[in-house]
Amino acid sequence: MTDNELIKELEAIDTSKMYLNDFLLTWNKKDYEIEAIFKTAQLLTMLRKKNISTKVFDSGLGISIFRDNSTRTRFSFASACNLLGLTVSDLDEGKSQIAHGETVRETANMVSFMADIIGIRDDMYIGKGNAYMKEVAAAVEDGYKEGVLEQRPTLVNLQCDIDHPTQSMSDAMHLINTFGGLENLKGKKIAMTWAYSPSYGKPLSVPQGIIGLMTRFGMEVALAHPKGYEVMPEVEEIANRQSAESGGTFTKTNNMAEAFENADIVYPKSWAPFEAMKKRTDYYGAGDFTAIKKLEKDLLAQNAEHTDWECTEKLMKLTNKGKALYMHCLPADITGVSCKKGEVEASVFDRYKIPLYKEASYKPYIIAAMIFLSKFKNPAQTISKLMEKGIKRIS
Amino acid sequence: MTDNELIKELEAIDTSKMYLNDFLLTWNKKDYEIEAIFKTAQLLTMLRKKNISTKVFDSGLGISIFRDNSTRTRFSFASACNLLGLTVSDLDEGKSQIAHGETVRETANMVSFMADIIGIRDDMYIGKGNAYMKEVAAAVEDGYKEGVLEQRPTLVNLQCDIDHPTQSMSDAMHLINTFGGLENLKGKKIAMTWAYSPSYGKPLSVPQGIIGLMTRFGMEVALAHPKGYEVMPEVEEIANRQSAESGGTFTKTNNMAEAFENADIVYPKSWAPFEAMKKRTDYYGAGDFTAIKKLEKDLLAQNAEHTDWECTEKLMKLTNKGKALYMHCLPADITGVSCKKGEVEASVFDRYKIPLYKEASYKPYIIAAMIFLSKFKNPAQTISKLMEKGIKRIS
Amino acid sequence: MTDNELIKELEAIDTSKMYLNDFLLTWNKKDYEIEAIFKTAQLLTMLRKKNISTKVFDSGLGISIFRDNSTRTRFSFASACNLLGLTVSDLDEGKSQIAHGETVRETANMVSFMADIIGIRDDMYIGKGNAYMKEVAAAVEDGYKEGVLEQRPTLVNLQCDIDHPTQSMSDAMHLINTFGGLENLKGKKIAMTWAYSPSYGKPLSVPQGIIGLMTRFGMEVALAHPKGYEVMPEVEEIANRQSAESGGTFTKTNNMAEAFENADIVYPKSWAPFEAMKKRTDYYGAGDFTAIKKLEKDLLAQNAEHTDWECTEKLMKLTNKGKALYMHCLPADITGVSCKKGEVEASVFDRYKIPLYKEASYKPYIIAAMIFLSKFKNPAQTISKLMEKGIKRIS
Repeated sequence: MTDNELIKELEAIDTSKMYLNDFLLTWNKKDYEIEAIFKTAQLLTMLRKKNISTKVFDSGLGISIFRDNSTRTRFSFASACNLLGLTVSDLDEGKSQIAHGETVRETANMVSFMADIIGIRDDMYIGKGNAYMKEVAAAVEDGYKEGVLEQRPTLVNLQCDIDHPTQSMSDAMHLINTFGGLENLKGKKIAMTWAYSPSYGKPLSVPQGIIGLMTRFGMEVALAHPKGYEVMPEVEEIANRQSAESGGTFTKTNNMAEAFENADIVYPKSWAPFEAMKKRTDYYGAGDFTAIKKLEKDLLAQNAEHTDWECTEKLMKLTNKGKALYMHCLPADITGVSCKKGEVEASVFDRYKIPLYKEASYKPYIIAAMIFLSKFKNPAQTISKLMEKGIKRIS
Repeated sequence: MTDNELIKELEAIDTSKMYLNDFLLTWNKKDYEIEAIFKTAQLLTMLRKKNISTKVFDSGLGISIFRDNSTRTRFSFASACNLLGLTVSDLDEGKSQIAHGETVRETANMVSFMADIIGIRDDMYIGKGNAYMKEVAAAVEDGYKEGVLEQRPTLVNLQCDIDHPTQSMSDAMHLINTFGGLENLKGKKIAMTWAYSPSYGKPLSVPQGIIGLMTRFGMEVALAHPKGYEVMPEVEEIANRQSAESGGTFTKTNNMAEAFENADIVYPKSWAPFEAMKKRTDYYGAGDFTAIKKLEKDLLAQNAEHTDWECTEKLMKLTNKGKALYMHCLPADITGVSCKKGEVEASVFDRYKIPLYKEASYKPYIIAAMIFLSKFKNPAQTISKLMEKGIKRIS
Repeated sequence: MTDNELIKELEAIDTSKMYLNDFLLTWNKKDYEIEAIFKTAQLLTMLRKKNISTKVFDSGLGISIFRDNSTRTRFSFASACNLLGLTVSDLDEGKSQIAHGETVRETANMVSFMADIIGIRDDMYIGKGNAYMKEVAAAVEDGYKEGVLEQRPTLVNLQCDIDHPTQSMSDAMHLINTFGGLENLKGKKIAMTWAYSPSYGKPLSVPQGIIGLMTRFGMEVALAHPKGYEVMPEVEEIANRQSAESGGTFTKTNNMAEAFENADIVYPKSWAPFEAMKKRTDYYGAGDFTAIKKLEKDLLAQNAEHTDWECTEKLMKLTNKGKALYMHCLPADITGVSCKKGEVEASVFDRYKIPLYKEASYKPYIIAAMIFLSKFKNPAQTISKLMEKGIKRIS
C-alpha cells in the first residue's frame, strides 16, 4: 500500500473520540480506533524510513512514571516522544512510596503544567495499577477544566495490572506484518500459554492483553495454563464476548500440547496466578512481610511442579505444519541460557530471534501512534502536511 | 491588556543589567527588573496559550543541580527549559558530598562548555546554599572571561538558604492575577505566619522570600511566629527598608490571630528556627551526629508546643470579610489528611485547592522569564519576532 | 584559517570508511581520518562561536551506557548530542550487573530502534570494556542487516580498558591549538609519566591513549613509570610501530626526571599496573573478594613506595626552558589541596588551571565530530549547508 492510500484509509476512520482521550485498555476502544492506531503506526514508520521528520511538537513534555523497573518500555516511550518532538521528564517517586488520593491529584497537576502526554507503568499490584492511571487521568481532566492546566495531557498505559496495550498492539502489528494484513488474522489460531520460569510473580498483563486484543480479530484464541494459574475472570469475559462478536473462538485448556495443536502462533510465557497476586497485594497493604515471604516460597514451589510447560521443539511440531510463529515480549527465560530450565528451548528461541526483535521493534511506533491520535484532531491531515513539508530527519 | 501593549511596556523597561546576569535574590533586583520578569512571564504564557512556539534556543543545555529532593521545582525547571528550547542535563553529585573551593570552580566549568543556564537548589544548610551559588557564578564568569567557556551560563536560584525567588515570584504572580494587577497589591495585608508541622527542619527560604519580596509592593506584611522561630535578621532588615520605601508596612508578632486580623492574604507554613538551623550546619560541619540527633528531637518537641498554630476556619473568619486568599508553596501538612495535626484544617485547604494549584502553575513561566531576561538583550524585540514568525508549538 | 579553507581541506579527505562506522581505537583509524576529526571539531567550534546552528538531526537518540561513574564525559557526550540535535537516553544497567553474550545482543537491539549513536564507557575491567563495545557493535550491525533496526547506530568509545579516544583526541586538539597546528607537533617531546596518587586502580586507558595517539604525529613520546607499572604490551607495540612510521620516537624509562628532561609537554598521571588489573578482573570473575581486598591493599602499599613521583616545580625546571605545557585529564590529585600528597604540586597545577580547563573544553566538539563523521557521507558539504542556512542557535 502506498502512503497516500494509507492516509486515505486513516482519513476515513472516525478518531474523534480518541482526541484528548487516554489509551488505557484496548477493549475500551472501538475496532476502527484500534485500526487507526495500526495505520498511524505504519505511516509513522514509512515516514521515518523515508527520512521525513515527524516532529509535530515544536516543544512539549512527555512525563513518564515507572513504578516498576523497565528497560525496553522506557526506551520505547523515549523513542516515541523523541520521534514526535516531545522531551521526556521522568517522575521518580521512589519505589517504596505508593501515593494515594489527594497526593496523586496534587502531583498529577504539579508535573503537568507543560505536559502533553503522561506514560505510566504500574503493574505490580492487582487492583492498583489501572486504578492509579484512572486517578491521574481524572486529576488532569479536572485540572484542565479548572484552568490549572493549559492543555489536557493524555495518558498512555505502559503496562498495568490488567492490560499491557502497547505490548499487545505491537504484537498484533507483528502478526499483521507476518501474515500480510489484519484481515488475514481471521481464523488463525494463537496459543497464549503459560510456561515455566524459575522466577515468580511475572505480571498477568501480557496474557490478559493478548486474549483481550486478539479475540476481536476473529482469531482462534486458546488460553492454556496449569490449574491454579487462572487470569482475571473479567478479562476472560471480555475475550468471550469479543470472540463471539468477531466470529472467532476463545477456548481454555490446562494442556499445553492441546493449545499448540495446529496453532499458527504460539506465545508461551510465565505469569503468576491472579488469586495469589491479589493476596500479595493485600499482604503489602497490611505490611505483612512474613506472609509475603511465605507466598513467594509457595509460588516458586507451585511453579516447580510445572517445569514440563516448556516450549520445546517437540511441542512446536504439533503446530500448523510445525511452523507456528513463536512470540514473546522479551526477555525470555531460555533453558540452558538464561536459566537451567525455563520457558523455551534454546533452539526454538534461536530460530525466532530476528522475528522476536522485530516484534519488539513496533512498540515505539505503536506508542507514538497512541500519542498522535490523542493529540491531533485530524491525524490524516497532520501526516499529509508532514509529507508535504518533507523536512529531513537527518539532514 | 493585549500582547502588543504588554510588549510595549516591557520594551520601556531597562533590562540591560539583567542580561548575562544571575537571578539569586529578589531584593538585589530593581523594582522595574522585577516587573520585567512578571511581564515576560505573562507574555510567554500568552504565546503558549495561542500555541505559538517560544523556542528561542535552537539547541543548548540547562544544567540543573539539586542538592535536595525536589519534584515540583525540578519539573518547573524542566518545563521552563523545554519551553525555550533548552535540554536539561542534571548534575547528580551524590547527596552526601558537599564540594568546596577548587572542586566547585572546576566542576562548574566542566559542566558548562555548552551550558546556557544553570539552575541550583541548595537550601539545606544555613550559610551554604547561596554561598555555593555565588561560587559557581564566579567560576563560570571567570571561565567565560578566560575563554574557557564560549558563553556565560547564567544562574537561577531554585531555592537557597536565604531566598526562594522562583517561589515568591510565582506567589506574587498569583496575587497579581487574583487582585487584578501589581498596583492593586498596594495596601493589601498579607500574613506570612508560621504553622505547626509534625516534621522538622523545613527551610526558611519561603517566609524570607515572601517578606523580602512583598514588602516592595506597598503591602502590609505581617510576619507571625512563636517565640524562638525567628527568621534571618538580615532579611528582616531588608523587609523593613523596602516597606519604608514602598509605603507599606512590615510588622512582627508572636500571635497568629493578630496577623490574620483583617488580612487579605494568609500564608501559614512551617519552618525551622534560624538559630537552630545555624547550629545544625555547624554540627554537620563538625560531623557531630549525636548533637544533630538531639537537635532534631528538641526541635520536634519545640514544634509540639505550638500545635495551635493551625490555619483553621475559625482563624480564617478573622480575615478581611472572612475571605482572605489562602496560599501555600505545597505540599502542605493537612490536618487529618497527610498527618494527624498539621498546618491547615482540611476544609480550608479543600476550598482553596484550585487557587493553590494555579499558584504553583506560574513557576515554569517565572523561571522561563528569568532565563529569558538573562539571555536576551532586547527581550521585547525577541518576543515580537516570535509572534511575527508564529511557529505553532503543536502543529 | 577561514571556515571555507577548513571546509575545503575536509572535503579533500576521504572519510568514506568512517561513514556508518564506529570510533573505538584511534590506532585503527588512518592518519587522514584522525585529521578529519580535528577539522570537523574545529568547524563545529567555529559555527558555534558564530551562533550558527549545527543541528543536523531534527530528532534522534544518542544512547549512553556508563558502566563507571562519570561527570565530565557524561556532560561532554550530552553536549555533543545536543549540539547536533540528538536527545540522550541513558541505559542504566545497575553497576553490579555485567551482561554477556545473548543479553548484550538483545539489549543492544532493544534500545536501538531509534538510536543514531551509542556512547559507551566501560573501563573497569581489563579485557572486558573494549570487548563489550565490539559485542554491541556486532549486535547492531546484525540488527541493521536483518532489518530489525531501521538505521545503523554507530558507537563512540567514551573510555574502555584499552583506549580513551575522546580524551586523547581532545588532548591532541589542545596541543594543536597551543603549538599552532598539527604539523608543529613534529619533534616536540611529550612526557607521559606515572604519578603518585593515594587512590588505587586508576584506568590505564589515558596513558595508553596518549602513547597510542601522539606517536603518530612524529613526536618524541617518553613513557615513564616506576617498575611494575607497565601498560599493555600491545599498546606499546603500536606506539613503537607508529613512531617509526611517523619519524618520531617512543622511549621508556623508570625515571621521572629523565622523561621531563627537555620536554615540551608533561602529562603526569596515576594509573594502576596492567598485570594487577588483569588479576583483579580474574578475581572479580571468580567472585574472590578476599583476593580483591588483598590486591587493593598491596597496590596502595606499592603506590606508597613512589610518593616521589610528583610533578613538582623542581621537576618542571628540567623541561624545555622550564616551560613545558602541563596536561591532565582531570580531576587531578593535588598535593595539599585534594590530598596530602598527590600527582602534582599545587603551584604547578594553579599556573596551568586555565589551559587545563581549555584542554577539557575540546571534548564535546571531538565527540560531536566523531558522531558527525560516522553519520554523514559528505561531511564538508553538510557543514557548508549549515553555514548557508545560517540558522541562529540563540535567536
